[in-house]
Amino acid sequence: MATVIDGKAVAQTIRSEIAEEVRALSQKYGKVPGLAVVIVGNRKDSQSYVGMKRKACAELGIKSFDIDLPEQVSESDLIKQVHQLNVNPDVHVCGKKCMQSGILVQLPLPKHINEEKVLSEISLEKDVDGFHPLNIGKLAMKDRDPLFLPCTPKACIELLSRSGVSIKGKKAVVVGRSNIVGLPASLLLLKADATVTIVHSRTTQPESIIREADIVIAAAGQPMMIKGSWIKPGAAVIDVGTNAVDDPTKKSGYRLVGDVDFEEASKVAGWITPVPGGVGPMTVTMLLHNTLEGAKRCFEKNH
Amino acid sequence: MATVIDGKAVAQTIRSEIAEEVRALSQKYGKVPGLAVVIVGNRKDSQSYVGMKRKACAELGIKSFDIDLPEQVSESDLIKQVHQLNVNPDVHVCGKKCMQSGILVQLPLPKHINEEKVLSEISLEKDVDGFHPLNIGKLAMKDRDPLFLPCTPKACIELLSRSGVSIKGKKAVVVGRSNIVGLPASLLLLKADATVTIVHSRTTQPESIIREADIVIAAAGQPMMIKGSWIKPGAAVIDVGTNAVDDPTKKSGYRLVGDVDFEEASKVAGWITPVPGGVGPMTVTMLLHNTLEGAKRCFEKNH
Repeated sequence: MATVIDGKAVAQTIRSEIAEEVRALSQKYGKVPGLAVVIVGNRKDSQSYVGMKRKACAELGIKSFDIDLPEQVSESDLIKQVHQLNVNPDVHVCGKKCMQSGILVQLPLPKHINEEKVLSEISLEKDVDGFHPLNIGKLAMKDRDPLFLPCTPKACIELLSRSGVSIKGKKAVVVGRSNIVGLPASLLLLKADATVTIVHSRTTQPESIIREADIVIAAAGQPMMIKGSWIKPGAAVIDVGTNAVDDPTKKSGYRLVGDVDFEEASKVAGWITPVPGGVGPMTVTMLLHNTLEGAKRCFEKNH
Repeated sequence: MATVIDGKAVAQTIRSEIAEEVRALSQKYGKVPGLAVVIVGNRKDSQSYVGMKRKACAELGIKSFDIDLPEQVSESDLIKQVHQLNVNPDVHVCGKKCMQSGILVQLPLPKHINEEKVLSEISLEKDVDGFHPLNIGKLAMKDRDPLFLPCTPKACIELLSRSGVSIKGKKAVVVGRSNIVGLPASLLLLKADATVTIVHSRTTQPESIIREADIVIAAAGQPMMIKGSWIKPGAAVIDVGTNAVDDPTKKSGYRLVGDVDFEEASKVAGWITPVPGGVGPMTVTMLLHNTLEGAKRCFEKNH
């Protein structure tokens, strides 16, 4: 039976470490990190994500700024807002000194706004989501380092390393090639010296490729696509999928499942993350970690 | 026996196509594309590459500008030069109107100059080498397109497609992960819907992975590392390696070999590129193609 990686517990450990560092920063510089969280419109899921992020900031002593814009906001007004946040260095909130050192624009944006354009306008030094193409370029390139790693891929690597799974020289397979998870995860694994294969919707016989992997990162968005028989005995399986499937036995009428068939795979794998409670709680934690890292650079520079 | 892909012949065909387009541009706009070729110092190999590039430009009706800087030039002076080339739109040379629409800085630069910094200063619109990290980021990301593709990876894809080798859904293995060839080649193959594995110096048992590949791009810089027995029968093998090995039977005392053992592999593969005469002649041709593409955008914009 696989060791089930407890994402909640790992996230809690890291959050304590971050809170400690925020306290140290506050003592040294007399101010705390600030994260501007921009949300456009009233999407229920986006509001729930943003709420989680703001709550997590508050718990760790990071000040979050709420910028709530209406659904109809124009692209140019949103970009103007981003530019203001880019230059905004020191702010006072409730008598507390704070430096707004990170900017997060919650995705997706309404259809009339070009996401790519907006994300490219965020100052590299404040791009805590790590989605700026220049950041991704540096992530891809050898001997270059991005200022921020995208949160979910960073969470996957952190879960592996904190579970004692070594990456160097291992065969890693990433299932999915999204800009947010699959692609940057494969670049991170490559930087960590894994031999990386990227499997996607056009791959024929993905099972035969996945079966060779010492490390599997599943980010395809396909409920329980990866069966137990697809897993190499002893492999480490990180399941990024969060899919709602009908379940009449639940009050809500649905339950969340990953891209991996957990029941089957946990009998074969060496390590596995559950859904929920695996990568999920780690992703917001990595955002907080990025915010802390950005703040440290920002405080140092403006000291 | 494999079909030997004649890189020289393919390059010649593409060069004729480019020359035709340059003539058409000249008729339409009354000016020709211009490529600024910057070389620092006296490295023999760099001078020989630059000479080839300048000669190829002249043959196709593209005007190349020679910017030869001394070995001791300071980083800031080199960057100043790049900035001047960035803004320089129209120039008159020998009574001919020309738009300097591309900039190439020959690598490597002397040790006292930060290559990364210099390359990042080249205007994206003129970055015909495609090495700007923002270009690489867009190459990596789904649904985004870089303005220029790096020349050698572009040459590999072009050789495959002009030989009738389809990429979509195929298993591709790239051997090597350099910023100039291996990494961008794997990103290009991924964009073309191959299932891509990147093999490198930390990979254990590369032969077993390469043996699964329908397409192999060898860019490891290891003379004849890839044996015939490593190749899947019928695979397409693109050999980017150009390694000098001792050969007392030659007047020069050496000969050039690829990363693939051509004699062995050509008995197994479906397609194979020779060294020399495979990827080599294509790389400069792709630079010329990038220069043409950049010029088209530049002429259109400034029309």
